[in-house]
This record gives sequence, C-alpha cells and structure tokens, in this order.
Amino acid sequence: MAIDRKALILQAATKSFVQFGYKATTMEQVSKIANVGKGTIYTFFKTKDELFAEILDKASQELISVMNRVAAENNKFIDKLFNLLDSILEFRSDHELFVKLAQEVRDIGTVQAMEGVKQMEAYALDFLRQQIDLAIEQKEVKSCDSSVAAFMILRLYLALTTEWNRAHEPLNETLIKEHMMLFISNGILK
Amino acid sequence: MAIDRKALILQAATKSFVQFGYKATTMEQVSKIANVGKGTIYTFFKTKDELFAEILDKASQELISVMNRVAAENNKFIDKLFNLLDSILEFRSDHELFVKLAQEVRDIGTVQAMEGVKQMEAYALDFLRQQIDLAIEQKEVKSCDSSVAAFMILRLYLALTTEWNRAHEPLNETLIKEHMMLFISNGILK
Repeated sequence: MAIDRKALILQAATKSFVQFGYKATTMEQVSKIANVGKGTIYTFFKTKDELFAEILDKASQELISVMNRVAAENNKFIDKLFNLLDSILEFRSDHELFVKLAQEVRDIGTVQAMEGVKQMEAYALDFLRQQIDLAIEQKEVKSCDSSVAAFMILRLYLALTTEWNRAHEPLNETLIKEHMMLFISNGILK
Repeated sequence: MAIDRKALILQAATKSFVQFGYKATTMEQVSKIANVGKGTIYTFFKTKDELFAEILDKASQELISVMNRVAAENNKFIDKLFNLLDSILEFRSDHELFVKLAQEVRDIGTVQAMEGVKQMEAYALDFLRQQIDLAIEQKEVKSCDSSVAAFMILRLYLALTTEWNRAHEPLNETLIKEHMMLFISNGILK
C-alpha cells in the first residue's frame, strides 16, 4: 500500500514536471494530480528537490540498463545503434520529462535540471564512444575520433527529439530514426 | 576621423563581449579597451544595447553576404557547403562573439543575445533549406525533408564549433570540416 502511494506520487510529479517544468511545479500541484493530501507526500519526500532526485535517479537507472543490454548484444554497431535508438525513443515517450528538462536548461538554466541532464549525457557519451571504438577495431566504422563522433550522434539525437519541437510539430519515432540513419550510415549525398 | 573612432569602439566592444560576455560588459570597460573617454562612446552609442545591436547587425550583414555569394556560385551542393563552411569558419574566428553569445544564451539566457542568435539562425536555416531543395531537384542529394536536414546540419555545425569547446580543447577548422563531411557526405560506416 505504501509503495503504491509512493509510485502514484512519483507519477504525478513526473506529470507536473513535464507539463509545467521544474520551476513551476509545487508540492501542492503534485498532491492535486496524485489525489492525495499534501501530508502524504511529505511522508515520502521532504522537498520538491527530493522528489525530483528520485525521478531522475530512476530514469538514469533505466538508461543505464538499456545501454548495458545493448552493449551485451552480439550485434553489428549499426544494429546496436538502431536498437539503442528504439529503446531510448520508447523510454523517451514514457518520460517526456527529459524533453522538458532539456528545454528548461536552455530557457531558465535551472541548476537541478542542468546537473541531471549533464549526468545522463556523460553516461550516454561514454557508452557511445566505447561502442564506436569497438566498431572501429572491428572495421565496421571508419577510423575517426570516437569522442567527437559520439558527441555528434548525441547532439543529432537531442536536436531531433527536443530542439526541433520548439519551432515545429514533433517528429515521430520512425522519422527520427530515418534522419539519424541518413546522416550516420550513408550521408545525404546521392 | 569620427568613423575611425566608431570602428575602434565597435572593435573594443566586440573584444569585451567575447571576453566577458554580454552581461558583464560595461561602457567603462569598452572605453578602457578602446582607450577613449566614456564621453566619446556616448557620442556614438547611447547604451550598451545600441552598441551590441550595431555589432550584431554588421555580423548579420556579413553572414548574409557570404550566403548570397555562395548561393550565386555555379557549383555542386557539396562544394557550396564546403565553401560556406570555409567562409563561416573564417568569419567565426573573426567574430568569436557568437561562440560566446551561444554560451551566454545557454548559461544566463540573456534576452538580447537570444534574439540576435535566433535571427542569424533563422537566416542560416532558410538558406540551407533552399540549397538542399535545389540539390534534391538536381539529384545531387537524396530525397529527404529539407527542413529537417538543414536543421541537422546547422546543429552539427554549432555543436562542433561552440558546444564541444565547453568540455574539450576547441577543434581546429580542418577537423570541424572533416567531421561535418564525415556525417553529411558519406556517413561513418565502412
């Protein structure tokens, strides 16, 4: 019972962070969305920061487990990248929070959001770099600076999933994957 | 004489914006760097905003003239893109201001900087989109959504020229071009 309520509160807080952003979310709002008293929230989380930290922590764990699963696959680089994109895009639609977070970092520079995004980014970059190094060794990928290539792939992904949405209709998952592959696997030239 | 002093002040202000950012630049600092009295600056510019607007205006004009020149070339898409990158990279080393600006937008969300960067970005995106459309028509580029492709190319460029520098040694112009071409013209796969 206690666990269910905690999960309920985390869900409600995620909803509120996604809809209103970090700064504009209050414990009152979360309690309304979760349909529990404010006192109940304080049983589990002393502050908004604590609530946020737990959500971020869960999401980081999820990201890490997706990456570990993909890394363990006995697959070509491009297939791993495809699978990673699939998993992350799915995970993104579950957790639109990061789209909102990434915007908030740009728009108001919320320190908490910044740290969370940085942490996740560092992990993703490191993972991509390792996979690219492995693929270069196995002659699947051209010899190149794997740190820069990892950085470019992540920036493209973030550009298509979050920055694009600021001025346009969001792209669906198929389009995001197609565009990523257009640049990564063969270039746009005929 | 008056024109020379105005140019001197603009140069000094650019230097200060690059070194200290928009927010931390004062008219006093600019007068020190330019080695002219504060009164002289006020003859030409009533406020820091006016100074900044003139610098941005000049840079926009320069960008527009580079793009018009490249657009007028009777060249293949990839050569135009190469030439554009060359010109813009040169123009960037002349005007490191935009690197600083782009950081400031992220870090403190200065409104003036934001508007300037948005304006330049909109122009660059529109130009790239038109060139891609033309290249698709002439069967040099694969059929694709030119708006998305333009957006991806610009994001890659900005990522390599400004975002990369925040956590790493800056890449030189050759490396920036090589990495851009790796993703745009043939992909990283062997």
